[in-house]
Amino acid sequence: MQFTRRHILAGTAGLAATPLLPAISANAAAPLAEKQAPSFYRYKVGDAQVTVISDGINTFALPETFVLNAKKDEVNTALDKAFLPKDKVSIHFAPLVINTGGKLVVLDTGNGPGAFASSKGNVGQFASNLAAAGIDPKSIDMVVISHFHGDHINGLLTAENVLAFPNAEVLVPAVEWKYFMDDGEMGKQTSDRMKGVFANARRVFDAGLKKKVTPYEHGKDVAPGLQAVATLGHTPGHTSFILSSGPDKIFIQSDVTNHPALFVSNPGWHLMFDQDPQMAEATRRKVYDMLVADKMRVQGFHYPFPAMGYVEKDGTGYRLVAAPWNPTL
Amino acid sequence: MQFTRRHILAGTAGLAATPLLPAISANAAAPLAEKQAPSFYRYKVGDAQVTVISDGINTFALPETFVLNAKKDEVNTALDKAFLPKDKVSIHFAPLVINTGGKLVVLDTGNGPGAFASSKGNVGQFASNLAAAGIDPKSIDMVVISHFHGDHINGLLTAENVLAFPNAEVLVPAVEWKYFMDDGEMGKQTSDRMKGVFANARRVFDAGLKKKVTPYEHGKDVAPGLQAVATLGHTPGHTSFILSSGPDKIFIQSDVTNHPALFVSNPGWHLMFDQDPQMAEATRRKVYDMLVADKMRVQGFHYPFPAMGYVEKDGTGYRLVAAPWNPTL
Repeated sequence: MQFTRRHILAGTAGLAATPLLPAISANAAAPLAEKQAPSFYRYKVGDAQVTVISDGINTFALPETFVLNAKKDEVNTALDKAFLPKDKVSIHFAPLVINTGGKLVVLDTGNGPGAFASSKGNVGQFASNLAAAGIDPKSIDMVVISHFHGDHINGLLTAENVLAFPNAEVLVPAVEWKYFMDDGEMGKQTSDRMKGVFANARRVFDAGLKKKVTPYEHGKDVAPGLQAVATLGHTPGHTSFILSSGPDKIFIQSDVTNHPALFVSNPGWHLMFDQDPQMAEATRRKVYDMLVADKMRVQGFHYPFPAMGYVEKDGTGYRLVAAPWNPTL
Repeated sequence: MQFTRRHILAGTAGLAATPLLPAISANAAAPLAEKQAPSFYRYKVGDAQVTVISDGINTFALPETFVLNAKKDEVNTALDKAFLPKDKVSIHFAPLVINTGGKLVVLDTGNGPGAFASSKGNVGQFASNLAAAGIDPKSIDMVVISHFHGDHINGLLTAENVLAFPNAEVLVPAVEWKYFMDDGEMGKQTSDRMKGVFANARRVFDAGLKKKVTPYEHGKDVAPGLQAVATLGHTPGHTSFILSSGPDKIFIQSDVTNHPALFVSNPGWHLMFDQDPQMAEATRRKVYDMLVADKMRVQGFHYPFPAMGYVEKDGTGYRLVAAPWNPTL
């Protein structure tokens, strides 16, 4: 650094007349950082503590039928309106760790470390962000699963196909369990996608967990202060949660909507991954009307990180208003 | 963990009939985490790299005259509409580190380590978040200052009143420098607040930096790809920046608005800290109309972390649409 030579002792009269762009020395160039900040975030709900742990983002070319009942052009218009690039979608995954009543609960597990190898680390970050948050998988008491899609259950297993949370009880929605473990239901499937969902659920729960799960009922607490709420349609047993502590509470929506720029703005749009799109839409409208009426905080598995905010009405749809990041706890 | 006893080998037929709430053992309770995630965030602008480094949040009781030309009730209504608590404001501070053209540039420095001792660490986090981002203050080549309010310049000095960035050239707006170093202008001040701004600027630049600064001109590049833009009104020499790299660019607004829920929504509102409120409003409307017309990314010193997004029209004002967090770089 040519510190003294480059500095100007400037008073009010002596403003710089010299060029402000010193020649760039290649030797002095600071290297660009190679890593994003660890993507975890903490907040309180009463006496409970929530840590949002990003599992990363999956970006893929916008499928023709990503929205079953809207044209690709309409979807692109919605993306553009939200200042997002056209012709692709970037879906975020936000599993949670909840410390409630002394129990350390993982709520959905992300895509697992082996998933989306082609993403080059963009997806499958749950384990590394969990470590960055200082949470040991061995310390997890319970894993609660909202539904059986791969981005929620595949993180139950490590890349070596052993339990990712070796000391945790695994709780699954009873309705979801009954449906996906039913050979008759599996036999009815005609689409490759649904056959794949069944096969993957059995891979994880049969081969991986040896069926060591505790089914839970909707309308009941699955952990202290964590109530399971039936929000059916996305899957037959799809579950949301209300986390309460004292007068404070938050609605954990799971997959009531996918990307908010598309499905919060357009609650009548049907996602290609909604197994019963009509029921999913009815659930979505009911939940979002409730969130608006109660001005209730909401955490969304597919919202952008840290995936928490409030919902307001916006024309014929809704708008997600992200809660401001708090740099302190 | 009573692992085996609590687990249920449940098939499709054998759903759990046992209570799902095991007794909570105080011994087994996981401790609550004591720290928020480090609050830094990286993104690219062409070949340049921006790291947003939070200096924390200052929360204070809403002053009667926080908005000079709106009633406290109106301000509370705006806070409530944005799902923020009434009767207080939480102002975030977002200094930047920009790696552009091989130069490592700090853009505004935050409140300094000694500021707001009463905040108990809520403010003055720049140094710790810089360390979390892996950036050594000694590696900083240049510090660029947007204007001379304390939350932008006080971080030039450490708690021991020595240079926080010992190897950096410090660049200041020439107009701002001329104004605040002018004894005649200082003598004209009648308000305690403005006397304090003058005194603090001289404390930092006289006593601290011994006037070792390089004044820069508006309309010119202060660092490779970083153009200074006159956005006067908030202070006499208030400066924004356009960072460009190839076809990509971003507008760095500094304090064209304070809290977006108040002043982006209501561009006609006059902040008590705007030295020339009419000029500040004219600047604000011009800048925001440009941001809307150009669909230009904008970084705001007082936006919620990570303080980057886009602006759209909303009724008689504007709305900030935060860019989605990218968990990868």
